[in-house]
Amino acid sequence: MRLLALLDGTLADPDAPLVRVDDLGLLRGDGIFETILAVDGKPRELGPHLDRLARSAAMLDMPEPDRAAFERAVRVVLDNWTGGAEVALKAVLTRGIEGGDGTPTGFVMGMEISAKALAQRAEGLAAVTLERGIEPGLAERAPWLLLGAKSLSYAVNMAALREAERRGAAEVVFTTSSGSVLEGPTSTLIAARGRTLTTPPSTLGILPGTTQAALFQAAERAGWTVEVEPIAVDDLYTADGVFLASSVRKITRVHTLDGKSLPDSTALHTTLTTLYESHY
Amino acid sequence: MRLLALLDGTLADPDAPLVRVDDLGLLRGDGIFETILAVDGKPRELGPHLDRLARSAAMLDMPEPDRAAFERAVRVVLDNWTGGAEVALKAVLTRGIEGGDGTPTGFVMGMEISAKALAQRAEGLAAVTLERGIEPGLAERAPWLLLGAKSLSYAVNMAALREAERRGAAEVVFTTSSGSVLEGPTSTLIAARGRTLTTPPSTLGILPGTTQAALFQAAERAGWTVEVEPIAVDDLYTADGVFLASSVRKITRVHTLDGKSLPDSTALHTTLTTLYESHY
Repeated sequence: MRLLALLDGTLADPDAPLVRVDDLGLLRGDGIFETILAVDGKPRELGPHLDRLARSAAMLDMPEPDRAAFERAVRVVLDNWTGGAEVALKAVLTRGIEGGDGTPTGFVMGMEISAKALAQRAEGLAAVTLERGIEPGLAERAPWLLLGAKSLSYAVNMAALREAERRGAAEVVFTTSSGSVLEGPTSTLIAARGRTLTTPPSTLGILPGTTQAALFQAAERAGWTVEVEPIAVDDLYTADGVFLASSVRKITRVHTLDGKSLPDSTALHTTLTTLYESHY
Repeated sequence: MRLLALLDGTLADPDAPLVRVDDLGLLRGDGIFETILAVDGKPRELGPHLDRLARSAAMLDMPEPDRAAFERAVRVVLDNWTGGAEVALKAVLTRGIEGGDGTPTGFVMGMEISAKALAQRAEGLAAVTLERGIEPGLAERAPWLLLGAKSLSYAVNMAALREAERRGAAEVVFTTSSGSVLEGPTSTLIAARGRTLTTPPSTLGILPGTTQAALFQAAERAGWTVEVEPIAVDDLYTADGVFLASSVRKITRVHTLDGKSLPDSTALHTTLTTLYESHY
């Protein structure tokens, strides 16, 4: 099942053309998005997602997104949803028509969670490390590179996932050339060691994770230590667990990195998933 | 005037929605494009542009573009064009619908040349240098970064142009952090010194220029020396002329770089423009 809601609160046919060819979202990948999970009709982390959408808009010099319109479109999708208990809500906002009056193009599309994502949540996945071409300091020095903005220009993220598949893996851990961990193409990396969870800082030029933040809040309340610190690639091999977090995949276990098995984190994965779910 | 032709050779209304919201060109900037100049009904460098479109497709693991279909769509636009003598033809091909059968979405849109581009051709422009976060070797080492592919993920290129405007300039010369020249966000850089023209090599992770190649062919036939070599930013200040070349802007003179006036290249610009036009 798929449902498409426009920012005026109306439903539209997702199989019908909606966007003009001169929309800058299409011509230039010039726009922003969020993917939000809803469970049993309730969106998770909707506030942080819309905060991050506004942050991405600011990084791209776009007008501030109409928060109420996105909240309403999310509600319209969920109120009309008759599919599975979980919905992936993709919220998109483009810069609008080239040479137009600046009116953005926006919508929220509700989709089922893919079988692939469900399998990865349950079974974990193999990942490979791929260099991202970002060195520490670059994101702050060169804001026009939009590092850490969730823009529609995701061709590189998609190419990295294809490279992972070529290497027999399902996911990517982006790294700096100096061997520091960044993020996945559509996920946040979390390493666990004892009762400490660590994720790399967004100042490296990566996206602040909403699911990771929710997990960290829940973990902290349960007495865990949570850290936002650089992580060396080598440290992933000795961690008790390595996880990729995102709205759709929740907390997904990385069982293999660059062809090497990581320590078995099955029990830890259950613990963290329980912590994460306790947040709702 | 604007004309839109589809890959089946039919004309469509450019003001009507044509693209679904789940097109990967929109959702992920996952697609490729070319901008081709036509003058008096004749496309310039159509072969090299379609070669480069095929090269971009290969870099993005997309199926080879249907060359005959693009040639036909270009012809349909030009045969029906009743606007100015020059037309900018934007050829676009996306990866198609998310989760679809892989059928790409493609079209060719004909547009007038903007008044801004015409003014810049005549008067030249001010540019600023901006770091691109690409070091020598990265493009070859990390092909998943799609460096040198003309993809629809151009949000960074657009952000760089906004940064130039904030700095009181109209254009950007992307550089490496080690002070080597790359390209403009939508143009190729050419430096002139005596009767030698130089452009940086595409192995740095930049786009091979079609307009630059046409100029170099014409210049070589006229007895100039042409080089594809790295250029240091500092060398731009002592060159006889610095130019940004692209289909729409032809050979446009950079008169000011980072707020400093460059040597007057007005006469040289006339010479190079005459050389370029002699190619047709």
